[in-house]
Amino acid sequence: MDSNQFREAAVASIDESERHVVSKVEPGYLRKLLPDAAPEDGEAWADIQKDIEVKIVPGLTHWQSPNFLAWFPCSSSFPGMLGEMWSAAFNGAGFNWICSPAVTELETIVLDWLARAFALPECYLSNGSTHGGGVIHGTASEAIATVMVAARDKYLREATSHLAPGSEELEDAIALKRSKLVALGSTATHSATQKAAMIAGVRFRAVPVRAEDGYKLTGEGLRKAITEIRAKGLEPFYLTVTLGTTDTCSIDDFDSITAVLAELAPPGPGELWVHVDAAYAGVALICPEYQHLSQNLDKFHSFNTNMHKWMLTNFDCSVLWVRCRRWLIEALGVSLAILRNDYTDSGLVTDYRDWQIPFGRRFRSLKIWFVVRTYGIKGLQAHIRKHIGFGEMFAGLVKTRQDLFEIVTGPRFALTVFKLQGKEIEGATLEDQNAVTKTLHDVVNAEGKIFLSSTVVGGVFAIRHCPSTPFVEAEHVKHHFQVLVEAAEKVLSRTNNTKI
Amino acid sequence: MDSNQFREAAVASIDESERHVVSKVEPGYLRKLLPDAAPEDGEAWADIQKDIEVKIVPGLTHWQSPNFLAWFPCSSSFPGMLGEMWSAAFNGAGFNWICSPAVTELETIVLDWLARAFALPECYLSNGSTHGGGVIHGTASEAIATVMVAARDKYLREATSHLAPGSEELEDAIALKRSKLVALGSTATHSATQKAAMIAGVRFRAVPVRAEDGYKLTGEGLRKAITEIRAKGLEPFYLTVTLGTTDTCSIDDFDSITAVLAELAPPGPGELWVHVDAAYAGVALICPEYQHLSQNLDKFHSFNTNMHKWMLTNFDCSVLWVRCRRWLIEALGVSLAILRNDYTDSGLVTDYRDWQIPFGRRFRSLKIWFVVRTYGIKGLQAHIRKHIGFGEMFAGLVKTRQDLFEIVTGPRFALTVFKLQGKEIEGATLEDQNAVTKTLHDVVNAEGKIFLSSTVVGGVFAIRHCPSTPFVEAEHVKHHFQVLVEAAEKVLSRTNNTKI
Repeated sequence: MDSNQFREAAVASIDESERHVVSKVEPGYLRKLLPDAAPEDGEAWADIQKDIEVKIVPGLTHWQSPNFLAWFPCSSSFPGMLGEMWSAAFNGAGFNWICSPAVTELETIVLDWLARAFALPECYLSNGSTHGGGVIHGTASEAIATVMVAARDKYLREATSHLAPGSEELEDAIALKRSKLVALGSTATHSATQKAAMIAGVRFRAVPVRAEDGYKLTGEGLRKAITEIRAKGLEPFYLTVTLGTTDTCSIDDFDSITAVLAELAPPGPGELWVHVDAAYAGVALICPEYQHLSQNLDKFHSFNTNMHKWMLTNFDCSVLWVRCRRWLIEALGVSLAILRNDYTDSGLVTDYRDWQIPFGRRFRSLKIWFVVRTYGIKGLQAHIRKHIGFGEMFAGLVKTRQDLFEIVTGPRFALTVFKLQGKEIEGATLEDQNAVTKTLHDVVNAEGKIFLSSTVVGGVFAIRHCPSTPFVEAEHVKHHFQVLVEAAEKVLSRTNNTKI
Repeated sequence: MDSNQFREAAVASIDESERHVVSKVEPGYLRKLLPDAAPEDGEAWADIQKDIEVKIVPGLTHWQSPNFLAWFPCSSSFPGMLGEMWSAAFNGAGFNWICSPAVTELETIVLDWLARAFALPECYLSNGSTHGGGVIHGTASEAIATVMVAARDKYLREATSHLAPGSEELEDAIALKRSKLVALGSTATHSATQKAAMIAGVRFRAVPVRAEDGYKLTGEGLRKAITEIRAKGLEPFYLTVTLGTTDTCSIDDFDSITAVLAELAPPGPGELWVHVDAAYAGVALICPEYQHLSQNLDKFHSFNTNMHKWMLTNFDCSVLWVRCRRWLIEALGVSLAILRNDYTDSGLVTDYRDWQIPFGRRFRSLKIWFVVRTYGIKGLQAHIRKHIGFGEMFAGLVKTRQDLFEIVTGPRFALTVFKLQGKEIEGATLEDQNAVTKTLHDVVNAEGKIFLSSTVVGGVFAIRHCPSTPFVEAEHVKHHFQVLVEAAEKVLSRTNNTKI
């Protein structure tokens, strides 16, 4: 494959996405096209490449298409792709510093660059006063599982510090105390927090969020949860707060949460570890107009955002910062004779394997380095602001057709969440109204001109429009709206005819 | 960057590795070469590319070099790299089937191909009688953490099946029982198992292995451990057995282990989940002469091997099979309204996010597909046999110089573990002998012609020689030996002069 062929394949893929953004294949399509067993003899690359185009591409959903509006984006760019290519060329396992010093050192440096660009408090810098720092994980789920394990072990260590290290008494006390621990999130928190609790072997409670609070977790909700949990003899030790929830991009109420925690679980032993999950919206902190959100992050313990969502860096690339790196290393550090080396023994180097669940690691900092240098801070700010503008534009269009649509939330960080309305369904039950909006969602996705995802907030079935993919322009947003208007008119008129 | 530049960069990297396989930079080298903050304005690619060559390449250790003999290999190939490139081009998050059906379906198909190629029992096929199947994880550590969580929850579910689902009583019973669980490995098991226990929040015990057993875990050792643990009121629920340990590539004694488990923890509720960690050596099962090792794997619960170690597939690519996929999904499956779609609801598709810790996933099956098709089964068998031959050749050379070297273990799966011996250190204490072998190790690595790792087995400090990188040839192996002989003569003669 030379660069021309590469370019052609990329162009073909983009053209295809214009035609049908979501794959139309049926489950099991590929099994019918491929042999049951690997070939005995090697095949020519030309035959393999033909199969990519004929058998794989039809089974792809086109995440880079300007008509991909589902979930959150997974955005790429040429420097992002070059980062993956060089990482592939420099293939290695990277589980300690000497495995390739550049892999470790570039990671520390670009995570410091990003911490500064996002105006994170100095406690998250690698040379900050609390000995914190950043690390690249694959996904926010891994980041959250990792900090929850660290939070659990920090809490247990502090609660058992009076017992002799290495003793059976200590091990028993830890195991018993662990059985009482409760991790917290809200009902709008991404499922990653619940899954992290399942992995870490602790209980999980979701604090309800309410429409009247804008689906934010508040201090009062948290107070009630902590009080109830403690009344049962259980111990809350961890909380995920979200900056940009999955459903609606709401931001939990950091101030009231901080105030309640200061009262119920003040800093020190017994405190709750608070992790800020900013998987999608966190990269917006690169714009000064959002940096008021960074200011109080030093009250919390860790923060993650995904460069692979909105920041043009190939999947996977979730960046995580902790206020004190020792918390990770104490929970996740192990060693073997075979891994010993003078550099690690010297304590002068970072072995990032102790900051994460996996053992080895790819050279993922390259793609961040390439993206940040190619766009510059100003270019990345312009990228974010462009999409924020498209969100406002789309919400503005929606408001021009109140005979068809009602905004449920937003626009927030480019995301607008809306439902159908109109005289055809006036007075219908919530369930019936939900069914009509679901029909719109299904009809539009089946048509395949645009691809949307849905959610349920406060009992309302709603459609999410999130136009923050790399190639989207104002004309596309107008087109999305036109597609939705035509489908909505059709769906509502059919509803009218058949009665609900 | 066009293909010529790419080729040049790759060649330059290989040339560099001939000169110095392990990076010579000092800790902190890169911080001095890069600015403290990201640039405000974008930079030209030419400037970035120059920095790769000037600032990054000197900080790389060359894992593809034929003189890289440390740890286990992390091997690449052109089809492996092409797989990464296409995966980067098809960038997406892949957390469920409709995210890109091809990502899920190709994974199922190539994992079935590999299961057949490795002669795994039919219970590991996606359409096998026990509803098992394979999945791609990043590293063996993730695979082991994942199956340990699944094993923990399977054990707890079975032990509490008499309690009402969703009740507080059930939650309390599970939490209390969890505090008694013990995961087992041996003292030769990779640290990944201990780390998995730390993540899963369970206790860990390493069963000692002995030189007279060839550093294998045996049924008798396991019997003693289980009996002692139970005597303390604790409950063993999980065991890692290893096919090719990290230190010496030993294979645990599957037959005696199976017999002891049949007696102490027979199949059914209360059984121990046995995971087979074959991270390095498992790919050798592609050769019929090793497939007797596959025969009884249906007695165990899961199996993993790393395609990125010895099988030419870019890092990361650890393949994991389970005998029953429901075990994973019950432990790791969660859902959100935003993720709902008709395909998932239909139950006809696989959502691999429920088989793993991360949420999203890359299109990693492409690189397996490309590698297996390009080489064919026969080509991959030849690849493995070539390295097995080099291991035998090296061990043969070592035996010609018994005045300098003694083999500690091997050759096994190309790995030879050896130490210094000779009249100069005859009668010296073990500690002093170890110090001399460590000096040899350090001298050779500092010289930089070849790069080795060391270990300690049965109290003996030993050097590992593992020549299974992609470009190694017989001439290289002779060269490795020559480098070692020259250094050993120097080290021993110095030892002689200064007395130990």
